[in-house]
Amino acid sequence: MITKEQIADAYKQIQDEICAGLELADGKGKFEEELWTREGGGGGRTRIIQNGNYLEKAGVNFSAVEGKLPEIIKKAFGVSEDDFFATGVSIVIHPNNPWIPIIHMNIRYFEMISESAKELRWFGGGIDLTPHYVIDEDTRFFHRSLKATCDKFKVDFYNNFKKWADDYFFIKHRNETRGVGGIFYDRLNPDSTALTWDEIFEFSKAVGRTFLPVYTELIERNKDKSYSKDHQDWQFQRRSRYVEFNLVYDAGTKFGLETNGRIESVLMSLPPQANWAYDFQPQPDSEEEKTLNLLKKGINWI
Amino acid sequence: MITKEQIADAYKQIQDEICAGLELADGKGKFEEELWTREGGGGGRTRIIQNGNYLEKAGVNFSAVEGKLPEIIKKAFGVSEDDFFATGVSIVIHPNNPWIPIIHMNIRYFEMISESAKELRWFGGGIDLTPHYVIDEDTRFFHRSLKATCDKFKVDFYNNFKKWADDYFFIKHRNETRGVGGIFYDRLNPDSTALTWDEIFEFSKAVGRTFLPVYTELIERNKDKSYSKDHQDWQFQRRSRYVEFNLVYDAGTKFGLETNGRIESVLMSLPPQANWAYDFQPQPDSEEEKTLNLLKKGINWI
Repeated sequence: MITKEQIADAYKQIQDEICAGLELADGKGKFEEELWTREGGGGGRTRIIQNGNYLEKAGVNFSAVEGKLPEIIKKAFGVSEDDFFATGVSIVIHPNNPWIPIIHMNIRYFEMISESAKELRWFGGGIDLTPHYVIDEDTRFFHRSLKATCDKFKVDFYNNFKKWADDYFFIKHRNETRGVGGIFYDRLNPDSTALTWDEIFEFSKAVGRTFLPVYTELIERNKDKSYSKDHQDWQFQRRSRYVEFNLVYDAGTKFGLETNGRIESVLMSLPPQANWAYDFQPQPDSEEEKTLNLLKKGINWI
Repeated sequence: MITKEQIADAYKQIQDEICAGLELADGKGKFEEELWTREGGGGGRTRIIQNGNYLEKAGVNFSAVEGKLPEIIKKAFGVSEDDFFATGVSIVIHPNNPWIPIIHMNIRYFEMISESAKELRWFGGGIDLTPHYVIDEDTRFFHRSLKATCDKFKVDFYNNFKKWADDYFFIKHRNETRGVGGIFYDRLNPDSTALTWDEIFEFSKAVGRTFLPVYTELIERNKDKSYSKDHQDWQFQRRSRYVEFNLVYDAGTKFGLETNGRIESVLMSLPPQANWAYDFQPQPDSEEEKTLNLLKKGINWI
């Protein structure tokens, strides 16, 4: 039986691998690390690159926290248990070149120590892509890579988790998806998956290890493309939608704000610069309009 | 007895006065107007200046909407009535010069047509200031102007509504106020104020008419001050806190998002540009640090 220490150790190792790989891909930026401890128990390693060659702001966080579950979260989970443990790796990257997409990855494990001896543990996570400009070829590559990872574990994982991502990363008040989706899953356990805990743990690590080769490939493909001020203005607009999603809807951000999480780590996902122009309308038949038309649920990228 | 039409007409006139006055103060920017109608009933006049001489983004909205109250709002209000009417003027201004403060003003009237014949009507509103750099003299002038308006109506209005603003415009996850406060009030009626409806209506208009002379004075005092890239970077940081408040806490914004309000009008309060630097720390004894130290509840500016 895997222990929470084993899971946290594996996640730390994945954080290390990803940071090393991103530094290599960037060629200039070096992660600055802040170690922090949480008053109620546990802590984390927040690592940030700012103003790299390609990574304008990249956060790769590891945390393993434990303690008493806040009332508000108990209500949200519908449980009465008090003690919890949560560990995860969480990544958001804002590149400077608008042709390189924003990316988000999260793998996490959560458990509650139940008085009723009922087991309350699960894995969650996902990877999703937010291109400023949707490039069909890159999006297909991204989704096919996720599908390849999922397919090693269960035949319906990709379809189910792709739909979950479409539904989750949705900006209701704009009636648009945050980006081109990816996979999102939560509360995976043997009951919900018909896999063993070991297999689900392997899946979680496999998702974590899908991130680096996929994103470095997307950097490589796009990093030398030139861009104009108009492209960048559009990028800043798209980033403002990212802010709207994260502050209004994102469950992880809400959890962090409501539980007095370390605020700079919780909000490291917010972009270095975002612009809100009033009622911006893209030109007909422009690249910008094409992108907006692809910010929809249910597109098959396979 | 004042009618809702009289209130809406007065608010429209205040919108007109303010727009004319702001154009004069800016000297370049002209309000673009969009008339919109709401599917469920009513509509509004959204007016925006972008890239004026001093007003980088200024929104002055009037709306008068009516119809069926959404379930979620009925719950929040704790009522079972269905039909509502709401009218108001709402302003947010982001100036380009960091020495000029951000300002927000709102006056509003709300009523429900009650089956139980119980009268459910009230006035709400307020004005609050968010300087990028707190200038003591300007802040005292601002608060004294608000107090002068309040004092004409009731001796405890300023103190009560100043405290209300301190509590309301508070960014909990940063443990800082949005700015230097001002006044905020809601659900004013004869029961809660011991004033007549007419007097409360007069107070609402007086608050609306306090905005223009106060803000144009603050523009005049600061518009010719020079500023550096560092000042502007700080401005963009402060604006990001404004975004955080509006998207995470502001009741008006939540109401707009949850009731499918006209999204560009609801979010016109968001700044033309906002930056999130990771873990930005001001220099010791700097103007920036001084400002942060003044973003606290309970400061007496009179």
